[in-house]
Amino acid sequence: MTNVHDHAYGLEKAIRESDQFQALKEAYEKVMNDASAKEMFESFRDTQIEIQEKQMQGQEITQEEVEKAQAVVEQVQQHEDISALMEKEQQLNVVINDISQIITKPLEELYGPQEDAQ
Amino acid sequence: MTNVHDHAYGLEKAIRESDQFQALKEAYEKVMNDASAKEMFESFRDTQIEIQEKQMQGQEITQEEVEKAQAVVEQVQQHEDISALMEKEQQLNVVINDISQIITKPLEELYGPQEDAQ
Repeated sequence: MTNVHDHAYGLEKAIRESDQFQALKEAYEKVMNDASAKEMFESFRDTQIEIQEKQMQGQEITQEEVEKAQAVVEQVQQHEDISALMEKEQQLNVVINDISQIITKPLEELYGPQEDAQ
Repeated sequence: MTNVHDHAYGLEKAIRESDQFQALKEAYEKVMNDASAKEMFESFRDTQIEIQEKQMQGQEITQEEVEKAQAVVEQVQQHEDISALMEKEQQLNVVINDISQIITKPLEELYGPQEDAQ
């Protein structure tokens, strides 16, 4: 029988060696090695997490918070290294979403809409 | 370069062929082919999803809802085929969680706690 864990480790290695992961790692390290970029990026992250947590808890996001978040997004988008990092994050996300769709297929097929459920 | 998608498809196949998935499939089909078990299982699922959605939206779960959910859980636990199905679900979940931990390691290492962040 094929071993699930062996395949998972093979996939982990493939992710680690992928162009997308290597490019992300490079972009991340560039930002982390620049104190002001690092601070700006972390402030952006904190703002995003704060808003997400409020949304998940069903709390209202105030107009002030929306404006603050937009200002932080504009600031990081104008920073060459941070916007490059965000682009690399998105590109790896596409890969991760593809993987997730592929490996959840067996369960989806099993629990998906049944013909006799109509 | 190793191909991420090929590895993902290999892992999908390994999941599909695993003892845990095959056992889950068998247990699921047994419940689905028994009209009264199917109805009981689907009512259990609906109750769970309803409560999860409320929790995610930060809505309060009433005492009545808690009691209703407990009653449904007790009912399905006493049903041999459904409790077998739930056991198989848990066993496959262990596998899926293992996989998830393995393949998110590269990102965790990158975004995890930095030594210089102390």
